[in-house]
Amino acid sequence: MVTRFLLAGVQLEPVFGDIPANIAKTSYWIREAAGRGARLVVLPEAASAGYVFAHRAEAAHHAQSVPDGPTVAAWARLAAELDVWIVGGVTERDGDRVFNAAVLLGPTGHVGTFRKAHLWNDEKEIYDRNVDGFPVFDTPLGRIGIGICYDAWFPETFRSAALQGADLVVLPSNWVPVPGQPEAAPAMANLMCMTGAHSNQCYVAGVSRIGVERGQTFVGRSVLVGPDGWPLAGPASPDREELVLAEVDLIGSRAERLHNPFNQPVADRRTDLYVH
Amino acid sequence: MVTRFLLAGVQLEPVFGDIPANIAKTSYWIREAAGRGARLVVLPEAASAGYVFAHRAEAAHHAQSVPDGPTVAAWARLAAELDVWIVGGVTERDGDRVFNAAVLLGPTGHVGTFRKAHLWNDEKEIYDRNVDGFPVFDTPLGRIGIGICYDAWFPETFRSAALQGADLVVLPSNWVPVPGQPEAAPAMANLMCMTGAHSNQCYVAGVSRIGVERGQTFVGRSVLVGPDGWPLAGPASPDREELVLAEVDLIGSRAERLHNPFNQPVADRRTDLYVH
Repeated sequence: MVTRFLLAGVQLEPVFGDIPANIAKTSYWIREAAGRGARLVVLPEAASAGYVFAHRAEAAHHAQSVPDGPTVAAWARLAAELDVWIVGGVTERDGDRVFNAAVLLGPTGHVGTFRKAHLWNDEKEIYDRNVDGFPVFDTPLGRIGIGICYDAWFPETFRSAALQGADLVVLPSNWVPVPGQPEAAPAMANLMCMTGAHSNQCYVAGVSRIGVERGQTFVGRSVLVGPDGWPLAGPASPDREELVLAEVDLIGSRAERLHNPFNQPVADRRTDLYVH
Repeated sequence: MVTRFLLAGVQLEPVFGDIPANIAKTSYWIREAAGRGARLVVLPEAASAGYVFAHRAEAAHHAQSVPDGPTVAAWARLAAELDVWIVGGVTERDGDRVFNAAVLLGPTGHVGTFRKAHLWNDEKEIYDRNVDGFPVFDTPLGRIGIGICYDAWFPETFRSAALQGADLVVLPSNWVPVPGQPEAAPAMANLMCMTGAHSNQCYVAGVSRIGVERGQTFVGRSVLVGPDGWPLAGPASPDREELVLAEVDLIGSRAERLHNPFNQPVADRRTDLYVH
């Protein structure tokens, strides 16, 4: 069984509030990635309708149900047509609840949904809280955990996924500038992806957006990281729509990753000593 | 009350198995740091007698009791004479147990000891296990948590210290090369210090050694990191004995650090969702 496959991150700029335009744009890039041979395509956070909602009512207005809303249905059709898996950020409405969510879709449809666990800044007033934790989805490509943007600031996100067997943590993101960033250093978001991967010996795909929305700048720099913590592809540019592409082997690399003789940051944990 | 002070990391190469030589060398550098105005001086891991012991019996032979062994007693005398605090790595014997430990000494003597929690590679056969957890020591300079080298690979080390109020996590270390290190990227150890600081909004002092001992290379690159995750001083060279020096304000910065409006990675934790 060949388990290596091409992983694609799509760094793009959603059109605020325009669901049809974003279906067209994300579909273009998903086709582009599939045309290059990708089997799993990761889109940014909030790719369905943009991100900088002024308040909860506005987010709710642009939200859609999962999996039958227009964006998720369009992505599911593409996943079936192109025989790919897709992870993408979507503003989700579930009854009267609104979530900053990410869906995982496969060729046979909706696999699962993750709702952002750590709400950043005024997201706390806009979105409902994840009460489902950090599900890990078992696919033919490997076991996939999901976090969204600020979730990566919490090492517990990577740990919670890894301890449930995740081979890959995908992070649909809208990374913003971090105060004090030295010009020569990698973006803090990239550092989180690298240490999260290294400390858990899993792959990490941090896929961000670009552009400026209602005064908020986004920094791009999407990166695909190997289980040793070093980038396989990217960081991408801070300001262009583009693909990051890397061959990965989630299933085939398991034995080597998890029995790395150099160090074993999961197996060597001292759970008897930790303060939570 | 002025709470700002100068923090010093001493990057040096211990002389394997020669306790008097290492007392002389560490004393030279402690005096040097104090002469520059440092109030807290951090030495590398295993600075009392070197690190690459072939087996437990050899480590035990070079181990000493705390705080009355020769190295710790010498450091304590210096701390009193120079009115400084010192953290240094020492091979500790306690009855028939042997620990890879670090001591915290102040002008009035021994404040506390940390024993390495995560034993790396064949350290598991050489040392006894820490059963005391991650103590945080309250000093006039601020609250100090300690980890040793590989402990920094576990984000739980930083969290356990931060959740107990640590303003600073000091990491006496013997950092070794990590496979796959890209030439242009910071050392993985530096990344761990940076994300550990950023995710916990505390200062981090990663102080490593240089040189080659019994075929094992050490990479230096000691770094002092601010609570935003960016280096205040260093990374130092990979191959020279030297000081890294930075002004810090553990106590005075508490309010600003912990109520940073940009993000609050400690306060925003979702302990209800984590898998441990």
